Amino acid sequence: MKISLKINRHLVLFVLAIAFMPSSVLAGPLPSWNDGAAKTAIFSFVANVTNTSSQNYVEPSERIATFDNDGTLWCEYPDYVQSLFMLDKVRDMAPAHPEWNDTEPFKSIISGKRFATSNFSAVESMQIYLAVSANLTPDEYLILARDWLSRSNNSELGMPHISCVYKPMLELMSYLKEEGFRIYIVTGGDEDFVRSFSEDAYAIPPEQVIGTALKLQYVENNSSCYLVKLPEILVVSDGQEKPKEIQQNIGLRPILAYGNSDGDIPMLKFATSGNRYSLGLLNLHDDPVREFAYDNTTAVGKLDRGPALAEKWGWQVVSMKDDWKAIF
Amino acid sequence: MKISLKINRHLVLFVLAIAFMPSSVLAGPLPSWNDGAAKTAIFSFVANVTNTSSQNYVEPSERIATFDNDGTLWCEYPDYVQSLFMLDKVRDMAPAHPEWNDTEPFKSIISGKRFATSNFSAVESMQIYLAVSANLTPDEYLILARDWLSRSNNSELGMPHISCVYKPMLELMSYLKEEGFRIYIVTGGDEDFVRSFSEDAYAIPPEQVIGTALKLQYVENNSSCYLVKLPEILVVSDGQEKPKEIQQNIGLRPILAYGNSDGDIPMLKFATSGNRYSLGLLNLHDDPVREFAYDNTTAVGKLDRGPALAEKWGWQVVSMKDDWKAIF
Repeated sequence: MKISLKINRHLVLFVLAIAFMPSSVLAGPLPSWNDGAAKTAIFSFVANVTNTSSQNYVEPSERIATFDNDGTLWCEYPDYVQSLFMLDKVRDMAPAHPEWNDTEPFKSIISGKRFATSNFSAVESMQIYLAVSANLTPDEYLILARDWLSRSNNSELGMPHISCVYKPMLELMSYLKEEGFRIYIVTGGDEDFVRSFSEDAYAIPPEQVIGTALKLQYVENNSSCYLVKLPEILVVSDGQEKPKEIQQNIGLRPILAYGNSDGDIPMLKFATSGNRYSLGLLNLHDDPVREFAYDNTTAVGKLDRGPALAEKWGWQVVSMKDDWKAIF
Repeated sequence: MKISLKINRHLVLFVLAIAFMPSSVLAGPLPSWNDGAAKTAIFSFVANVTNTSSQNYVEPSERIATFDNDGTLWCEYPDYVQSLFMLDKVRDMAPAHPEWNDTEPFKSIISGKRFATSNFSAVESMQIYLAVSANLTPDEYLILARDWLSRSNNSELGMPHISCVYKPMLELMSYLKEEGFRIYIVTGGDEDFVRSFSEDAYAIPPEQVIGTALKLQYVENNSSCYLVKLPEILVVSDGQEKPKEIQQNIGLRPILAYGNSDGDIPMLKFATSGNRYSLGLLNLHDDPVREFAYDNTTAVGKLDRGPALAEKWGWQVVSMKDDWKAIF
């Protein structure tokens, strides 16, 4: 009787332990990734840089990973979320700007003639960006962005934008954190726009978001002091600006970089041409059923010669269709 | 006998527990601070913002503390350490720059006529800064700075600069970290210069150092890609630039800011005029015996009307003479 009681107690403890075990422990760290070259490349990279007896070992203090946002961490199709936000903001602000009825590109946004990133030139996009983002304090801007995000859906997927975050990418970031990495989002989008949801959507705090930004003005008013966003670009964090922003903000070359479009290529080159063991990764949007298939065919997430570049530089291509068990 | 054995075992465990207890637990978190207004202000502030039932409670995600470097975290007297580094670099580089023999300010640095920050105008200081810092990769610059720091002493104190770090400040940063704060150094000095020793001296990683910086150039060379510091200023992180840099880099208003000179005043104003409970602190260099007494009388660390401003804005003045039990 005494022995059987002991077995029962062990059994109960075992069942309880299983019941309260995080699912990642049971299924391994990347449950939404299919077995294959991409998952293997990630595991092999992490095993190498975290194993003190490996010649590819990297000190925890140097384990920096940088991720693009649009198309890498969340859905950017049929349009960049920030573009949709900006176009809605123009329509919201229109009553206070009667002059916009005669001024392009605002006139045709208000009339409904133009409604997507692809309808505007780069110069016009910048005009829109400045018009809706400037003359606000960063806090005011955050409130506007959060309010808009809380009531806006992806038109094709019928889900809130904030739910169109890629599950395999959340698992990857969480796995890397557990392995001692510091994760940074390096976005071509507005830094404050991404900061408005990065903590909720990705568990990434604002200081780990690097992106496009306006200059700021310092204002002092009696016993109060605050900053206002000016209608002047400080930096457009895309292409070659990404490595520069990484160096200025972090002070270290990443050992892992993950992107999905032409604007991420210099960041991947920078991460994978240092002295330490490194990994570059590129998402291919090739799943027309569960997400979209659009690489190099549309206005968003243009990726020219992605697989060819990946082969030349030794990066890992991730097929969202084949490498991911689940997308959202 | 059985009872006495039990007592002995408890005693042994107790003694072991004490022996392995960190000294901070035994002496309280700020052992090098004397009891007094400053220590009380810090404890009271931390108690308020970390107590969930206090009306001044601040979520851990918003507990940002920013510290100036020169004169706040380490000694800046008789001259800024970075100035000494730059002047030595000019002398090192002189053989490769024969044109400097006829060009000021280099000529009189080489001849030994000028040898301190106070000997140069702001424009000349900038010329020196660009001449010695540009045309290097950030890694090359770090190696030069570390090498120089490893063999340079404070001329008055006779200790390596890296040992002239204020012990009470190390305790304060470590205490704040334990209480859920993220600590940033916001320096008027070169970002990479401070990054070269911040991890060793302060346990602050490079990405938590914000400072003056040069623009960077992106270079791609076959299968390698790197950045080079250009002879062009990106930002001089002093005065009103400090709050702006904090906002751009961190995306949050700090709730604690600590400085010691005029260049830190806007940062303190910014930190202490938000919606949340906050604390501003100012070191007064008033200890001619253990360090130096120099406020507002010399070329370094100029602090005009510090105590008056502190009174107006509700900041805590820290007398290094009276509030600190030990300095180094």
